[in-house]
Amino acid sequence: MTHNGYDGKSLEMLKRFNVKVGDLVYIETKQGNYSATILPRYEYSAPGRIVAKLENGYNIGVSIDKIKSIKRAGKNLNNSTVASDRGPFLKKNRTDTNTLEVVKNDTDQETTNLSNDYPLVSLISTGGTISSRIDYRTGGVRAALTAAELYSSVPELKKYAYIEPEVLFSEYSENLTPKHWATIAKTIGEKILTRKYKGVVVAHGTDTMHYTASALSFALQNLPIPVILVGAQRSSDRPSSDAALNLLGATIMAIKSEIAGVFVAMHNSISDDLVSIHLGTRVRKNHTSRRDAFKSIDIEPIAQVRGENVEVPEHNSEISLSKRSTKFDKMIVKPNFNRNVTLLKFYPGFDPRWIDHSFELGSKIIIMEGTGLGHVSRECIPAIKKAIDRQVLVFITSQCIWGKMNLNVYETGRDLLSIGVIPLQNMLSETAVVKAMWALGNFRNMDGIKKVMSHNIANEITNRIKVD
Amino acid sequence: MTHNGYDGKSLEMLKRFNVKVGDLVYIETKQGNYSATILPRYEYSAPGRIVAKLENGYNIGVSIDKIKSIKRAGKNLNNSTVASDRGPFLKKNRTDTNTLEVVKNDTDQETTNLSNDYPLVSLISTGGTISSRIDYRTGGVRAALTAAELYSSVPELKKYAYIEPEVLFSEYSENLTPKHWATIAKTIGEKILTRKYKGVVVAHGTDTMHYTASALSFALQNLPIPVILVGAQRSSDRPSSDAALNLLGATIMAIKSEIAGVFVAMHNSISDDLVSIHLGTRVRKNHTSRRDAFKSIDIEPIAQVRGENVEVPEHNSEISLSKRSTKFDKMIVKPNFNRNVTLLKFYPGFDPRWIDHSFELGSKIIIMEGTGLGHVSRECIPAIKKAIDRQVLVFITSQCIWGKMNLNVYETGRDLLSIGVIPLQNMLSETAVVKAMWALGNFRNMDGIKKVMSHNIANEITNRIKVD
Repeated sequence: MTHNGYDGKSLEMLKRFNVKVGDLVYIETKQGNYSATILPRYEYSAPGRIVAKLENGYNIGVSIDKIKSIKRAGKNLNNSTVASDRGPFLKKNRTDTNTLEVVKNDTDQETTNLSNDYPLVSLISTGGTISSRIDYRTGGVRAALTAAELYSSVPELKKYAYIEPEVLFSEYSENLTPKHWATIAKTIGEKILTRKYKGVVVAHGTDTMHYTASALSFALQNLPIPVILVGAQRSSDRPSSDAALNLLGATIMAIKSEIAGVFVAMHNSISDDLVSIHLGTRVRKNHTSRRDAFKSIDIEPIAQVRGENVEVPEHNSEISLSKRSTKFDKMIVKPNFNRNVTLLKFYPGFDPRWIDHSFELGSKIIIMEGTGLGHVSRECIPAIKKAIDRQVLVFITSQCIWGKMNLNVYETGRDLLSIGVIPLQNMLSETAVVKAMWALGNFRNMDGIKKVMSHNIANEITNRIKVD
Repeated sequence: MTHNGYDGKSLEMLKRFNVKVGDLVYIETKQGNYSATILPRYEYSAPGRIVAKLENGYNIGVSIDKIKSIKRAGKNLNNSTVASDRGPFLKKNRTDTNTLEVVKNDTDQETTNLSNDYPLVSLISTGGTISSRIDYRTGGVRAALTAAELYSSVPELKKYAYIEPEVLFSEYSENLTPKHWATIAKTIGEKILTRKYKGVVVAHGTDTMHYTASALSFALQNLPIPVILVGAQRSSDRPSSDAALNLLGATIMAIKSEIAGVFVAMHNSISDDLVSIHLGTRVRKNHTSRRDAFKSIDIEPIAQVRGENVEVPEHNSEISLSKRSTKFDKMIVKPNFNRNVTLLKFYPGFDPRWIDHSFELGSKIIIMEGTGLGHVSRECIPAIKKAIDRQVLVFITSQCIWGKMNLNVYETGRDLLSIGVIPLQNMLSETAVVKAMWALGNFRNMDGIKKVMSHNIANEITNRIKVD
């Protein structure tokens, strides 16, 4: 298994230059030269490439057509610069499986003399691709690494901050539930109240990261410091992984941002040194696989991390951003969520009996994801009216994703308004279902919940909708 | 009511220049001069503007700050050039309400000598904003105009084609059901078989236009001529209406396109003379109100109509386009749809009992709109397995919208595959639910339906997914 995954011409090339997986090498190509460690090839990588990890933690795939020579730098991975350049949380251990063992550091001892120049960041790991690696046995990706291991793969982080890792869960995010949101919110709240941290980074699977970001935006209000969710679309042992860049971007945001709140940090993709910072309530995973899958909706990303700088462009006054502060006692933690909420996506042929059934399943709130400005078919009106008569709150959002609801323009909209349906302006459906679970979890009175839903809390409603 | 809707400074200006709604005027501004007819102001228009219809049918809103003078050209709307410039389908009638009466032309008599240079286009009106106008009483938009009236508002159309209008329904598209799709498909099929038309244009509400476009893409195969759905985001009597441009673009596509198939023609918005032509199965309404709300997903628009030209850029070989032909007998019409299909959007906290309930409501097919590469929570697996055991077909799509499913990458995906869930590659959820209703309506055998769903018919599955 010294050439794991390599075959054909790429295998021949490795053999020709007498190098193997794990070797630290000097690769000479037509475009430039690299010092790197040869990584295993995985089944989805492009053919005819040698995959290697650069010293800065990035992975590359070098086309064998462009390679002039590969020279062995002498040491293999377990004796390489990656391992010898050990930070405070790395402990090199030769084991019989020849892997690095990474141990959690006792940061409490080390943080007493922390200055602003070398701040402490809490890294809470919940699972997902960013904390996973490929299982070469099955070819799939496993959520397996700890936050500490993750840290070890991005040695650059040490330039900026002490990272205090904690593994909270190890779940792919499609398996996270509102209960997990509550645990994450409480954990972050407790950490913030210690006043030790400059910022909190949450490593999270990307599938539902925007739902969790919304949940934290409502559960943690008046935050004195930034809380940044970060994920990866490609696991860190794959070429073109975005894990290192995203984690670095999130950490720099955590320590340098002058704004506080809940954010998502993900690869911008225009350039390889740019990480977009999205508002927790206005972001969506819009692509299954691209590294720039996350997009701010109806607004631009609230900031960009370029290299080691946080750039905050001027924003429309409709968006309210809080500054970083020392008012730790002003923080509000409302971590409860109630699942008795239904999101129903409307489509032609939609069966109105689903609306009746929501009530029967115990739903107290229904979010109808309508069409266009917020419409559903006339067939649905009696069922919605019946639900409202039974004290169920019915809100409407739009499956268009971008833009604002308006139930005043068309007959259908006015009919919906007249029976008591409440349009949620430009709130995203995903944010709406989370906010409804949060409102139901923290407020008893249904009239109060109705008001909370329509009232802007965390930029989930903005009016910055250019109509052109 | 001679200054309908005008107030404040704009009303003062109309009075100062002694002009009123309906007057044909010459407006001199700092930017240029216009011959136009003054239109009523509606409640959503920007303040401080005079709204007017230009001779070419476009509406403008002129800021009163920029107006140097307004001179009355003498005649009001009912004697204006719009009315006197009557085409074959316009008959001027003075009535006591002072409106234009538009009558349907007996095209059968006139089409016998049609040459290719002056082709016949069938315009089927189903309703929606494109065939509606503002109700000044309520301030809302009513689906009221006939296709013929619509034609009268875009006199430019006469330059290119005879338009044979037919009002099939007058419904906002959120009220259209699979039954309507069947009627539209049959009507188009019958019209095409007369061999009289160079193309078919379907005026449609925008809310569900992409669903209908998908439905027609499956119901009408091997089309010899193009079928183009067209809508408007702003009704034709509002300034900045896109109705005229879109209808013109759709008509030019209908007569000049060398490709056949089902398309959607909507404003591109980069420039005011550009209409994007989208594939019927790969388009989505992505904004509640913008004129460029419709976007091709995972591909570029298949063509653009610029001025009077159709530009078809080179497309990836994965997309198959049919050429216009005279093989009318090769056309396949399969217009049946069966509503026993459920689309369920997954979200954290999603109650798996919804899946059980689908079966109880009679669903034969469930489309799960999952997260990321096509995932749902582990909590859902037993319910999905139970549904599959009960002979329900379960397919998965992604709420990401862009990108391809891949159930091989993560554990969750492999678990779903192992119980028999079928990923629909990069098929849009909206297209998937329509295709499932179509497959269920036209094929009996569930194994056959399973195959039909995974097999590409009308570019609903493309592999042109750049992963970067």
